[in-house]
Order: sequence, then structure tokens, then C-alpha cells
Amino acid sequence: MKETINVNWLKGMAFEAQVGEQKIIIDAAEKVGGKGRGPQPKPLMMVSIAGCTGMDVISILNKMRVEVDKFNVRVEGELTEEHPKHFSKMTIIYEFWGKDLPMNKIEKAVNLSQDRYCGVSFNYRKSFELAHEIKIMN
Amino acid sequence: MKETINVNWLKGMAFEAQVGEQKIIIDAAEKVGGKGRGPQPKPLMMVSIAGCTGMDVISILNKMRVEVDKFNVRVEGELTEEHPKHFSKMTIIYEFWGKDLPMNKIEKAVNLSQDRYCGVSFNYRKSFELAHEIKIMN
Repeated sequence: MKETINVNWLKGMAFEAQVGEQKIIIDAAEKVGGKGRGPQPKPLMMVSIAGCTGMDVISILNKMRVEVDKFNVRVEGELTEEHPKHFSKMTIIYEFWGKDLPMNKIEKAVNLSQDRYCGVSFNYRKSFELAHEIKIMN
Repeated sequence: MKETINVNWLKGMAFEAQVGEQKIIIDAAEKVGGKGRGPQPKPLMMVSIAGCTGMDVISILNKMRVEVDKFNVRVEGELTEEHPKHFSKMTIIYEFWGKDLPMNKIEKAVNLSQDRYCGVSFNYRKSFELAHEIKIMN
């Protein structure tokens, strides 16, 4: 299976990515010559894993008939000081809001995503440490 | 150094990512229950590497006083058939348009990014095969 994306240079450090029918502007921070017109490349790696595992978890919880009021995936990434600055660790914090949420089912959904379904997690785990936490918020 | 992002579940399979001051909607494809409201997580991994190395290259070419008219970074990703579907290879195709472009300097800029500056490439190379090509388009 193949995926192709195109990222076109706009001006300065800004690029426009064409992903299927969607467009995203990416840009560097102002301190390194960009204008902050869009997210930077490294945080997009974090959005990618959050989206991948978040979609798994919400879809598994649906199948388990667990309803959540609110669901947030926070990703904390640790970057090396040495160059090239790259991720040495990411921690995924799954935060759930809802009434009488069943912790065992939520843990199961998260573990299924991390161990079996989420391809982005699979790729990242080969490159750096990947940890996760589950928080019931109310 | 730490980076944090938050990705909030909207509805269905759609999530809204908050990255600094930017927001991005991500969503699953319609065939897996999404509504295609935004890019999917795996292509975002490709946007991340294209942006990272694209910014390096344009910034190095600037310092070398090489002017390009147009610059596109295409990424072709190969996904496994087995689950979890993950990247087994990415090929980065750097495409340049411009008058009398000096291939040696362009190669040097690309190699500097791939070998020394691009942290996303560094991370991905530990996880799967990473190849690249340079194309002068006119």
C-alpha cells in the first residue's frame, strides 16, 4: 500500500502540504526565520500519533458501548539537546471525562491501540521510548 | 527540551489538534467511519518529514545564495499489509525548478539535511528505510 503527499514551498520557510483533498500550511518559528504561519514539523509527529491512537481508542470504546463526554490526547515529547534534535521519548496522556467510566474497559481500549492497532505507535517505538498514562478527569 | 500538544476529540472520528497557536482538524477516511474533515494521522508523518527537510534545504540554499523558482518535496510512503499497518519505507523526492541550478550545491544541501540537520529523518531512519532522490525539473 502506498501513500503520497506533496509539500510545496511557498516563501520564506513556509510550505503548503497537500494531503488528499486537504491543505495544511507548515512554517518555522520566528526565531529561526519563519513567520509562524502554521505548525512546525516536529509537533506534527506528535499530532500524528495522538490522532492515530485517539481514533483507535474512540472506535474501540464505541464498540464496547462506553460513552465518554470528552476525550483529550496530550502528547509530551522530549527532544535531545544534541543535533540533529530528535525525539528521545514521547508520553501519551489519555484524558477522559464522563459519568461512571469503567477504568478496565478504558485500559483495555488503550492497550489494544498501543499493542495491536496503532501503526504510528509501532513505528515510533522502534525509534524512541514511548510511554502512556490514563487519566479519568472527573 | 519539551514539546506538548493537545488533541481533542470532536465527534465521530474527528479530532482537533492544538499546536502552539495553530489548530488542525484530523479525521479518518469515510470508509473507516470518518468524514474526511481533515488529513489522516499517517500522512501527517509524511508531512512532518517533508517540512523538516524542506525547511533545512531552503535555508541552506539561501546561505549558499542558490535561488530556486519553485521547490516541491514529495514523499512516497510504503505501508505494510500486516497489522498494525505501519511504514516500512519512505522515499523523499526533492524537485527543483529554476535557471542554471547547480546540482552539486543542491546535492550538498540535501545531504546536509539528511545526514546532519533533520531530526525527523533521524528518528524515522531508526524505524524504517529512508531513501531520497533529487530532480531538476526544467
